[in-house]
Amino acid sequence: MTLLNKAISEAFLEAEKAKEEGEIPVGAVIFSDTEIIAKAHNLREQKKSPTAHAEILAIEEAAKKVSDWRLNDLSIVVTLEPCVMCAGAIMNSRLKNVYFAAYDPDAGAFGGNMDVSEGKCNICGGIFKEKAEDLISGFFKEKRKDEE
Amino acid sequence: MTLLNKAISEAFLEAEKAKEEGEIPVGAVIFSDTEIIAKAHNLREQKKSPTAHAEILAIEEAAKKVSDWRLNDLSIVVTLEPCVMCAGAIMNSRLKNVYFAAYDPDAGAFGGNMDVSEGKCNICGGIFKEKAEDLISGFFKEKRKDEE
Repeated sequence: MTLLNKAISEAFLEAEKAKEEGEIPVGAVIFSDTEIIAKAHNLREQKKSPTAHAEILAIEEAAKKVSDWRLNDLSIVVTLEPCVMCAGAIMNSRLKNVYFAAYDPDAGAFGGNMDVSEGKCNICGGIFKEKAEDLISGFFKEKRKDEE
Repeated sequence: MTLLNKAISEAFLEAEKAKEEGEIPVGAVIFSDTEIIAKAHNLREQKKSPTAHAEILAIEEAAKKVSDWRLNDLSIVVTLEPCVMCAGAIMNSRLKNVYFAAYDPDAGAFGGNMDVSEGKCNICGGIFKEKAEDLISGFFKEKRKDEE
């Protein structure tokens, strides 16, 4: 299994954790050429913080680990297309490559709803798209059922 | 002095603090109709974190204070136009009004370089523009002098 594949699997496991905790299921993993550096899942409700998206938490953990705000040599994989905030954080941290699974037509900022990248990022969207879409739509279907 | 004016003054004081600490001088203040809720300045170098912009730190402090990720009833004032990450965080936190001083033609995401707001935010840019521009350009002029 290549490291990208391992990172994707770990990102999906993180998303599952978010789901179990009642959070919108999104997971993110940051990795180098040789190892996983940071992983996180959405904690917005638990942390009561609008910035506690999976990507922001993973970026902050990675920056802490490498003791630098520049993450030039690292890549990120996310189960859902980043929103404007997270896309901006990815660009600010200069992550080398961005991989994401499902496109987000409502809030995606790397092509789904808008594109804020200005060609400054290597972006690869749509990997394991169906799996990610099932995860998100399943979550909201169950949530609606609970609310009925 | 109205609360907006007070918030702007405080934001400039925060920016001055950042400057004294060798950070790019940006300050942000979040306020309600009656009081200042949170204030912060850029700490990217000190925290070695790509997310430690003034706006993100102020938003996180405000969310902690009101125990909610929704900041619907609050407004933010920033000395420099927010970047993509911060503009996204402002929208995610549903802040009611956004005021900023200098436009940022390189990285501003509320009209200076691009506009990510999609009409979802009340934005007022350019207040105390000259003061903010002097602060930023003075900082970089001194920095260049130090590096010579």
